[in-house]
Amino acid sequence: MISATIIGTGNVAMNLCEAFKLCGSVLLKQVIGRNPKVLENFQAYAKTSTDFKMILDSDVCVIAVSDDSITSISKHFTNYNGLLIHTSGSVAVHALPKECRKGVFYPLQTFSNGRTIDFNKVPICIEAEEEVDFELLKNLAESISRSVFKISSEQRRSLHLAAVFVNNFTNHLYEVGQHICRENNVPFELLKPLILETAKKMESLSPNKAQTGPARRRDKKTIDGHLEQLKNKKQKEIYKSLTESITETPYGKKL
Amino acid sequence: MISATIIGTGNVAMNLCEAFKLCGSVLLKQVIGRNPKVLENFQAYAKTSTDFKMILDSDVCVIAVSDDSITSISKHFTNYNGLLIHTSGSVAVHALPKECRKGVFYPLQTFSNGRTIDFNKVPICIEAEEEVDFELLKNLAESISRSVFKISSEQRRSLHLAAVFVNNFTNHLYEVGQHICRENNVPFELLKPLILETAKKMESLSPNKAQTGPARRRDKKTIDGHLEQLKNKKQKEIYKSLTESITETPYGKKL
Repeated sequence: MISATIIGTGNVAMNLCEAFKLCGSVLLKQVIGRNPKVLENFQAYAKTSTDFKMILDSDVCVIAVSDDSITSISKHFTNYNGLLIHTSGSVAVHALPKECRKGVFYPLQTFSNGRTIDFNKVPICIEAEEEVDFELLKNLAESISRSVFKISSEQRRSLHLAAVFVNNFTNHLYEVGQHICRENNVPFELLKPLILETAKKMESLSPNKAQTGPARRRDKKTIDGHLEQLKNKKQKEIYKSLTESITETPYGKKL
Repeated sequence: MISATIIGTGNVAMNLCEAFKLCGSVLLKQVIGRNPKVLENFQAYAKTSTDFKMILDSDVCVIAVSDDSITSISKHFTNYNGLLIHTSGSVAVHALPKECRKGVFYPLQTFSNGRTIDFNKVPICIEAEEEVDFELLKNLAESISRSVFKISSEQRRSLHLAAVFVNNFTNHLYEVGQHICRENNVPFELLKPLILETAKKMESLSPNKAQTGPARRRDKKTIDGHLEQLKNKKQKEIYKSLTESITETPYGKKL
């Protein structure tokens, strides 16, 4: 049994509570957060506290707070005896206090309020400075996920950048699509099966093989027509930069 | 029973053959295509021919060929007595010969070789010039899909443009993500659960509510770091134009 503390009350913290509870091999001793109101949602999982000084002993303390708060919050735990880890994709392991045993536990998934994620399928990228700590982290990760990877801070930085493209930017393209639908009185609902199939295709096709559309065909007539349809300057820019990038990409045989 | 002919041997033609066969209320009489080798795959569904002049009588003839071939190929069918329809998102109904009864049957989905689509869930956008033809098209569409919409040529043009953003451009962002992974020796597999969840979120959240990431938080430090990491000029441009567009988008409460 691994004993754990969670710092933070956001979506990652909540999903971790649920995953630790379900797996049966992690004893969640405590959740600490600044907001007493939000902490109430965590009382079903562990003891809660708003005082960072009141941290109990445990094997691992998971700092699941926003990227820019990791360094300041972790300073409260320089006397903590367990393994201190954060869950961020873009923050180096060295951002944690040098006095501590430290590591990273980055679940590569998007967590939203009200959506419970099946942690079993979430890739967890782990990193630790000492071998014994790495083993502990590995056991912790494998107790909730079937997909655990040893990833260095440098590799994690790249993964996080790639994730910005496939998640944050993709989501914004959905918003542009919705905007175009609204302006032309067609329901965005019509695009949802297409959005899902575009993602599902990645199970069996590489993105290079799956690429279709006017830019892939170098169909200048359709591209010019689209640019004329777009009235929004920023949307035109996005259209142009993505179309140019697709046009410059090497593909196999002509579709 | 509606009798039908299909012109074309691509992925849309193949998926339509399968859907017509499954529904039991469409009699597919004939498939016509130029390539005798590819036509062999269609012999299980109907009679096949490589000669456009040999078209048999039917209620509906579906021209499922690439956008730029619709006008030239449809000229072979000026004597056809049934309803002539094409399946394109970006071609107007008037592209078909003026001598014919004509319409559009646009299945808003991405069709790939080797992936069979459940047509029941594919939104079909239909348009016809005459009321009686519209009724026939509606019956045809409803025999294979639960999601049928009356959409004008103008609306369809907008839907097609929106589809380029959520499908073609999104797929290219996946390719950029894969490229970043490759360059940094991390498996692209790690991003696949994130790709799928990003799309699935649209079932329950609007893209505006689902937006996260450094651009949404206006986290200049992370954004500058990412731009420094990106060596590819086109990728930098895509990063900048999407980040600017996210930054200019109005959101509700701060995340």
